Amino acid sequence: MGLIGASIGLALRKSGHAGRIVGIGRRPDRLERAVELGAIDDYLVGAGPTLRDVDLLVLCVPVDQIVDRGVECEGFLSDQAVLTDAGSTKGRLVAEMDRRLILPSRFLGSHPIAGSEKTGAEAARADLYQDRTCVLTPTHQTAPSTVETVRQFWRRLGMNVVEMSADDHDRALALTSHLPHLVSSALSSAVDPRYHGQAGTGLRDASRLAAGDPQLWTAILSDNRDHVLAAIDAFEQRLRELRQAIEDRGHSQLEASLARGKRHRDNLGS
Amino acid sequence: MGLIGASIGLALRKSGHAGRIVGIGRRPDRLERAVELGAIDDYLVGAGPTLRDVDLLVLCVPVDQIVDRGVECEGFLSDQAVLTDAGSTKGRLVAEMDRRLILPSRFLGSHPIAGSEKTGAEAARADLYQDRTCVLTPTHQTAPSTVETVRQFWRRLGMNVVEMSADDHDRALALTSHLPHLVSSALSSAVDPRYHGQAGTGLRDASRLAAGDPQLWTAILSDNRDHVLAAIDAFEQRLRELRQAIEDRGHSQLEASLARGKRHRDNLGS
Repeated sequence: MGLIGASIGLALRKSGHAGRIVGIGRRPDRLERAVELGAIDDYLVGAGPTLRDVDLLVLCVPVDQIVDRGVECEGFLSDQAVLTDAGSTKGRLVAEMDRRLILPSRFLGSHPIAGSEKTGAEAARADLYQDRTCVLTPTHQTAPSTVETVRQFWRRLGMNVVEMSADDHDRALALTSHLPHLVSSALSSAVDPRYHGQAGTGLRDASRLAAGDPQLWTAILSDNRDHVLAAIDAFEQRLRELRQAIEDRGHSQLEASLARGKRHRDNLGS
Repeated sequence: MGLIGASIGLALRKSGHAGRIVGIGRRPDRLERAVELGAIDDYLVGAGPTLRDVDLLVLCVPVDQIVDRGVECEGFLSDQAVLTDAGSTKGRLVAEMDRRLILPSRFLGSHPIAGSEKTGAEAARADLYQDRTCVLTPTHQTAPSTVETVRQFWRRLGMNVVEMSADDHDRALALTSHLPHLVSSALSSAVDPRYHGQAGTGLRDASRLAAGDPQLWTAILSDNRDHVLAAIDAFEQRLRELRQAIEDRGHSQLEASLARGKRHRDNLGS
């Protein structure tokens, strides 16, 4: 019942969903808060027999805990229940789920690409998922009915749903999410706070991601190690080109490199 | 009469300034547009004898053209006129102005730290300078009355005005502005547009600066070469620490490095 789970609750309620929305967590105070915020109708402290009534369970815990929590919950779910997650990395997780679950056909990896550097149910928003992309990573073990259930669920929250392999997902996200986080963090660290008085909106935008939770991001970056290392190498190559052009006073080379960055950014859109 | 000059006109008018606001430029169509937008009352195409009535002239041209335009305009100004600029780098510019102007006592380097990746008078905003910092870089040649005039001018636009040496300014801005621009550009270049479908708000924020004008930024980065190279080196050191921790699977080291970035970012504020 952090930002991701509470936003799902708010979005689901806003979509007109008539069924019960139940939060599962460890800390009763946080679960109570999610009820107060209108994100859930009720809650369970930890997995238990009540889970047998669940139709769809979405695991919204840090990526290094998803498999354990999923296996733990499965023991209480009915055979008709569908299990998915909201983790930012998919390769290791999906492989382990297929190996460890009793009914892997009822599991499907999801990554709703939406979030914030903020954390906690207080930062939850009913429109967090609106018009964002959700990646599904089915395997040969995933039942078609599971894919359909999970697809409809995210679409109900306003998402554009796409399917790809877990490895393709992790390669893409290393570049579009994990690399930007690292670059923001390194940038933030490199600027001594004594210079903050001379900072404008540029540094604020470029380093915003650095405010994210270090523990969550350690798990994500570690989990996607090989693709992340390749993404850093690609970035460093680009930065070295820019540095060399500045050092060599190669104005036309520098302008051409900046123009390439501008073309990509203009293509990305606002 | 681009973003910077037109925003000055709009902000000055909004502040209740009763005097005339005259734009000087090369392209009559753009100057006409600035009149339509309410940024200026009238305009001159190029410097000319009419400049003798000017009290304060703000040079809002790319940094590599400020000195030449300043020297050209000074030939038409009265001895009472004050000259300043809005350039993003100050060291070379201020030294050349002191050397080439007939009355260097009437010149003061300014850097209003506000802007946008957008360009042109259409993107101008009356509140662009509100609550932002403006750095003044007086030298031993600058008259106290010049400092007072320029300080009051920027304060009138809502800015917090600080003074420092041109070199201190350039060292600070290399970190707070020029480095973020380079990092955004390299990040944007490193992410192949075929992955843009899997991009969220994180990449958009972190790469926003890359949309800036490549020609303007080539001039800025080249002008502040030595401080910019040092800033890149500081950044690369931080990124290497993060990369090494990921490669070594050093979770506690990685989390500590990310926590440092978060502390700096939290200190910077929104």
